[in-house]
Amino acid sequence: MTGTLYGLGIGPGDPELITLKALRLLQAAPVLAYPAPEEGDSLARAIVAPHLPGGQSEIAIRMPMVAARFPAQEVYDWAAEEIGGHLAEGRDVVALCEGDPFFYGSFMYLFGRVAETHKVEVVPGVSSLTACAAVLGAPLAARNDVLNVVPATLEPQVLAGLLRDTEAAAIIKVGRHLQKVRKVLGLLGLLDRARYVERATLDEQRILPLAEMEEDSAPYFSMILVHRRGEAWTC
Amino acid sequence: MTGTLYGLGIGPGDPELITLKALRLLQAAPVLAYPAPEEGDSLARAIVAPHLPGGQSEIAIRMPMVAARFPAQEVYDWAAEEIGGHLAEGRDVVALCEGDPFFYGSFMYLFGRVAETHKVEVVPGVSSLTACAAVLGAPLAARNDVLNVVPATLEPQVLAGLLRDTEAAAIIKVGRHLQKVRKVLGLLGLLDRARYVERATLDEQRILPLAEMEEDSAPYFSMILVHRRGEAWTC
Repeated sequence: MTGTLYGLGIGPGDPELITLKALRLLQAAPVLAYPAPEEGDSLARAIVAPHLPGGQSEIAIRMPMVAARFPAQEVYDWAAEEIGGHLAEGRDVVALCEGDPFFYGSFMYLFGRVAETHKVEVVPGVSSLTACAAVLGAPLAARNDVLNVVPATLEPQVLAGLLRDTEAAAIIKVGRHLQKVRKVLGLLGLLDRARYVERATLDEQRILPLAEMEEDSAPYFSMILVHRRGEAWTC
Repeated sequence: MTGTLYGLGIGPGDPELITLKALRLLQAAPVLAYPAPEEGDSLARAIVAPHLPGGQSEIAIRMPMVAARFPAQEVYDWAAEEIGGHLAEGRDVVALCEGDPFFYGSFMYLFGRVAETHKVEVVPGVSSLTACAAVLGAPLAARNDVLNVVPATLEPQVLAGLLRDTEAAAIIKVGRHLQKVRKVLGLLGLLDRARYVERATLDEQRILPLAEMEEDSAPYFSMILVHRRGEAWTC
């Protein structure tokens, strides 16, 4: 009897935004795995900390800041081997995923390594996408809108091409690309249609019109939502 | 003291995919509102039925099949008035929303009517988007993918333009547009990259390659996921 790896969507940050299913699996599993920085605390583990029963084995998947120094690939190889060891001995493992495991999550790297030899199940979670819309108090997309989810990492001309005619867009992975995104949206005349959300649903949550955001870079957990139509939501 | 309207994301269908926050608000509210067909049972109510404590007032927002016969606008006007009556008397109301309230949900029609005069809070939920990816066992989008969420209701040439160069797409509102979508994806050479998911996470869930789907139309709760890269997910 081998164990199952559960990719557990734990939601955007508020510990109360975990699902009943994720909570049940989290509390039943003998082993937890989670992403963590090279040093210090894991946000994913902090989100579920209020729910942990204690006495579980833990695998912190620590990602080096400078990827070249110790390639990410080796970290995931190591983590998949650790997890595989537990599964082979019949212990279930839950891998904690901020937001949803299959929405731009690093869980895909574990999934790609473990799914060929072991049973893997994914439990969807509340993604940052809808969490940001909720805290903004504005629909993400409606009716026949096309919604574009666009990584800020793309080249400015690619971003401009994608956003030029957009009805609704979520720009993710903002981080150090903030200035570039602001410039592109400005050139397209969409700056006053863009809102910036940082750490949605966490205590440190911050929301402001992008035009009023003065910093040059943003934390990893930030998103810019653009909606051409604005605020008229009645049918 | 007036009440608050909560737009409650209750997840894609599995009653266990509700969040702790939505469950708490659901069980505490004196009044529930939910969308329902003209006759018969509400799916949203069925999803939360195992969690209901009993003794709550209920507002079924029944949408006529033939919209022209009794315009949707009048139904939402009526519902907003009913809800507003409870709020004015200090009673909180939870509006049940399948998936997430602000991801193409009909909640926006209530929101647009109630938010001007009363306090409205949205609780994000697990959307059908990530639920479909989870049950397919394949990442929705990863790394620098652009993800397009595209309503199947659009004209074939518009769909073709949006999907031609897509890396990852979720085609929603499939219903009676199934044949059209299949044809467009076929012309673009993407048919073997497309998978069909019906009623994700419910007992009646159905998953198959779009090329093997023989019907000409699909239920409202269905989605087609397209990913150009296919199944290679290791980093």
